[in-house]
Amino acid sequence: MSRIITIGREFGSGGRELGKRLAELLGIAYYDNEIVSEIVKRSNLAEEYVNQILEKKIIRYFPITVSHTLSSPDYSHFDVENRVYSAKIKVIKEMAEKGDCVIVGRCADFVLAEKNPLRIFVYADMDKKIERCRLKNEEDSNLSDKALKQKIVKVDKGRARYYEFFTGNRWGDKKNYDICVNTSNLPIKLIAENLAHTIQKL
Amino acid sequence: MSRIITIGREFGSGGRELGKRLAELLGIAYYDNEIVSEIVKRSNLAEEYVNQILEKKIIRYFPITVSHTLSSPDYSHFDVENRVYSAKIKVIKEMAEKGDCVIVGRCADFVLAEKNPLRIFVYADMDKKIERCRLKNEEDSNLSDKALKQKIVKVDKGRARYYEFFTGNRWGDKKNYDICVNTSNLPIKLIAENLAHTIQKL
Repeated sequence: MSRIITIGREFGSGGRELGKRLAELLGIAYYDNEIVSEIVKRSNLAEEYVNQILEKKIIRYFPITVSHTLSSPDYSHFDVENRVYSAKIKVIKEMAEKGDCVIVGRCADFVLAEKNPLRIFVYADMDKKIERCRLKNEEDSNLSDKALKQKIVKVDKGRARYYEFFTGNRWGDKKNYDICVNTSNLPIKLIAENLAHTIQKL
Repeated sequence: MSRIITIGREFGSGGRELGKRLAELLGIAYYDNEIVSEIVKRSNLAEEYVNQILEKKIIRYFPITVSHTLSSPDYSHFDVENRVYSAKIKVIKEMAEKGDCVIVGRCADFVLAEKNPLRIFVYADMDKKIERCRLKNEEDSNLSDKALKQKIVKVDKGRARYYEFFTGNRWGDKKNYDICVNTSNLPIKLIAENLAHTIQKL
C-alpha cells in the first residue's frame, strides 16, 4: 500500500486536524484547500463558486417539457461544472504523482483508487461535533446548539450528495474505507500517532 | 476509557484473530465461546441451542387469531430465550468485573455500555472473507465461492438480526463503534499491534 492517505470526514469531527497531524508525523505533503486554490488558478473562476460546485448541492436545470421545450438546459452551467470536475481530478492526480501525501475530502479516495491509498473516514457523535465547532471556529462560537446542529447536518448533506453523485458510492459507508475512526472518545493526537505508526510499517 | 475491548465482526473478517492477538499483546483475558460455555453450565441447556438463541434467527410464535386463539404462544420458548438473555448479560458483566478483557460478539458493547469499553468493529470485502474462510476452516475449504458467500451472508444476517433485536441499534453501523477496521488490505497482526499501542496510551 502506498503512503497516499485520503481522509473523508464529517464536519466538526476533526478530520482536518487528524490529516494535518498525520502529514506532519510522516513528513509528507498535506492537501486540503490547496486543491481548490489550484483549480481557481487554472480555471479563472471565483473560489466561492468552485467551492460550491465541489462541496454543495448539485443543481441541474432541465427543460420543463420534453416535446415543446419552454426553457433550455443551462448548458453553460454544465460546462463549468464539468470543467471544475476535470480540473479537480487532474489536480489531485498531479499532487499524488509528486509523492506521498495526505489529501482531505474531494472524493480523493475514488479519484486515486488505482494508487491503492489508505482510505480513512473520520466521524463523531453530534454533541462532540457541536462542541468542537464552537471551540475551533470563531464564527460558530455564538451559535446555539440547534443552529450548529443544523449547520453540521447541512454541510454533511452537501458532502454526501456530492460524493454519491461523483463516485456512485455512499459517503461514509465503512465498506469504502480501510479505517473509520470515531473521535468522540479518542484523542486525535493519539489516533494520528498510531495511524502514522501503522502506515510506516505497511 | 477502560481497557475493556468489545469486538463486533463480520463472519470471515478475522475479528476473532484480532481479538486474540490484542488480548495477548495487552496481557488481558479473552472471551468468546467461553461466554456460551458458561451459559450452558448455568442453564443446563444444550450448547447448540444456546448458540442458536445467541447467534441466529429470533423465532417468535404467536396465536393464529387474536379473539379465538387456535394455538397458544410457545411460552416455554419465550422463557428459555429470556433465561439465556439474562444469563448472557450476567456472564458478560461478571467477566468484565473480573478485570480488563477482550470480548468478541454477543452484543458486549451494548451490555457493557456503562463501562465505556473501546468498541471495535471488524469487516472485510466479500472476496477476502471467502478467501479467509477457505484458509481457516477445514469444513469450508471445499465449498465453492457461491456456497461460501451464501454461508457468510447467512451468518451475518443472523448476527445483524440478533444485535438489532437485542440493542435496538443497527449492527455494524459505525456510529455505534469507536474504530471500524477493514482487514481487506491491512495485516491483522499490524492492526492488533497498533490498537494495543493506542489502548495502552488511553
